[in-house]
Amino acid sequence: MAGEFALIERLLGQRLGPSPVALPTSSSVTPAADGLLLGPGDDCALIAPPAIGDAWAISTDMLIEGTHFLGADNPEDLGWKTLAVNLSDLAAMGAQPRYATLAMALSSDDNSQGWIDRFFSGFQQCAAQFGVTLIGGDTTRGTRSFCVTVFGTVSPSRALRRSGAQADDDIWISGHPGLAALGLQHKLGNITLPDALVASCDQALHHPQPRVALGMALAGLAHSCLDVSDGLLQDLRHITQASDLTAELKQSALPGAPQNVQETLWQACLLGGGDDYELLFSAPASARQTLHTLSQQLDLPLHRIGNMQKGDNQGTIHLINDQGQPIDLTHMRSGFDHFA
Amino acid sequence: MAGEFALIERLLGQRLGPSPVALPTSSSVTPAADGLLLGPGDDCALIAPPAIGDAWAISTDMLIEGTHFLGADNPEDLGWKTLAVNLSDLAAMGAQPRYATLAMALSSDDNSQGWIDRFFSGFQQCAAQFGVTLIGGDTTRGTRSFCVTVFGTVSPSRALRRSGAQADDDIWISGHPGLAALGLQHKLGNITLPDALVASCDQALHHPQPRVALGMALAGLAHSCLDVSDGLLQDLRHITQASDLTAELKQSALPGAPQNVQETLWQACLLGGGDDYELLFSAPASARQTLHTLSQQLDLPLHRIGNMQKGDNQGTIHLINDQGQPIDLTHMRSGFDHFA
Repeated sequence: MAGEFALIERLLGQRLGPSPVALPTSSSVTPAADGLLLGPGDDCALIAPPAIGDAWAISTDMLIEGTHFLGADNPEDLGWKTLAVNLSDLAAMGAQPRYATLAMALSSDDNSQGWIDRFFSGFQQCAAQFGVTLIGGDTTRGTRSFCVTVFGTVSPSRALRRSGAQADDDIWISGHPGLAALGLQHKLGNITLPDALVASCDQALHHPQPRVALGMALAGLAHSCLDVSDGLLQDLRHITQASDLTAELKQSALPGAPQNVQETLWQACLLGGGDDYELLFSAPASARQTLHTLSQQLDLPLHRIGNMQKGDNQGTIHLINDQGQPIDLTHMRSGFDHFA
Repeated sequence: MAGEFALIERLLGQRLGPSPVALPTSSSVTPAADGLLLGPGDDCALIAPPAIGDAWAISTDMLIEGTHFLGADNPEDLGWKTLAVNLSDLAAMGAQPRYATLAMALSSDDNSQGWIDRFFSGFQQCAAQFGVTLIGGDTTRGTRSFCVTVFGTVSPSRALRRSGAQADDDIWISGHPGLAALGLQHKLGNITLPDALVASCDQALHHPQPRVALGMALAGLAHSCLDVSDGLLQDLRHITQASDLTAELKQSALPGAPQNVQETLWQACLLGGGDDYELLFSAPASARQTLHTLSQQLDLPLHRIGNMQKGDNQGTIHLINDQGQPIDLTHMRSGFDHFA
């Protein structure tokens, strides 16, 4: 039978026929090494409980052509990113990625012309790199769109929350925030980046690295955490509001502009751009040495950019220049809000 | 802040601000009665493990405007159906529904004109009726579409599989298969139904009842089960193929045509129509009395329509008339395949 079922079978690498999964019959329900009791091919997947003391961390995200990606985007990169942005949510909770489901709407051309195979190849590369097993899916016809739900495990008492920040916590951000937004402006033709910068910006925009190892290391260490997808300022505000605090960022501590990039453009990309998928977290000053060591172990920059403060105007964020004066942020794009 | 965050806050009935959830801090991780450790508002939801011995049953489905529903459809019904069709997958495994995530793409109008509130009201009615807690979501702009992932609990040794059918099993189907397809033909203007029939067909098409109580009662009793969404014949073939059997259906045992509905039209709707969300299952003859009692308890018809047989041509389905002669099924629409 051609069509939907053939597509699912091809992508999931198995027949939906006589033996939809190699796994248990009703008399044999020992989970596989990955805890999977029943994979794709039935009405539901079955997964075993996590290790005692752990909880499931669950997140879902939808990516739509025209909103989150363009039809001309490289399918492998898009497949990677579709899973990576969901794993970034698990990282932000300190959870270990375990499983994912993938629902997708496609045109007939996507199926016949190999687009979806290339997409799926990128998706599976990301799954393999981060130890994720695909446990189920759905395919339908429609505007190209993807919805991934991810499942990770974390001890609830160590899970990283937005609401746990404390006054005097340092504020940190990982990696290379701002590059994805810079890459998008270049791609849209609004700016022309130096050649040397295009590759790293493209990588940040199209092939983001979910900070899974960092997130798991921060569990039980950081007081609060989220992943920056809608812009540093807007996402930091989620922490300050949830934690009833204000935040002060030091301009001199922010990651500096890449060579030959104008300072105001950089600041807009760094503070207001989206698609970073870096971890923004707060931690006590006593964690600084551990974090420096962690940065070296993971070969990942960790920038200490400010601190949390008590204040009457909870949720507020101040950016302070070298002279200790606040910089007006009202002109700054406040982040990416689909319904603003 | 207007827009996406306000929309999420409104729909999920809580602020994303200072206290995104009323639930645990790191020093207090006792789950609520529904096992939820952390609800919407953070990067992930956290759910406690199921009762010892249970597994999670997980399914995901995407509904797209123009493919699965029309823009003019009643939003409350659509909200109901969006969750109900997913719960039908849990029912087909014998699982008890517990949680759901909801990702949605919407137009700006959907937000401003109250469409999404009506949709969400229908979704929540279904959630309340079946004891489902919404644990997370995502909203974005795009062609109106919805992706639900559902989580239920079931003992793996009692879970209902497609591959468990045995030779000589009776084949059963619940409820009122065929009415949804009949209602769709009426809605499309291809036929005109008698007034007395329109209401029940509309109900079947727009407000399907996931057979959750039946599925849970069948766990450990039926040998195989699935929910009929793509047409009785096509879905039965999933069982026969997965179980290495053939099936023989008796025409005289099939649910009869409603009054004033032409026999050939009815047979096409019953055997080839989709959107039934009834349970199709096989069980040993020894279960007949239990199933009759169950049918009365649930006030739900259970039709014994044929049986499973050994045969060389595995997967094949025969329909037998009153004279014991096979009826040609090749003209029958073989089900709903999005990519055929």
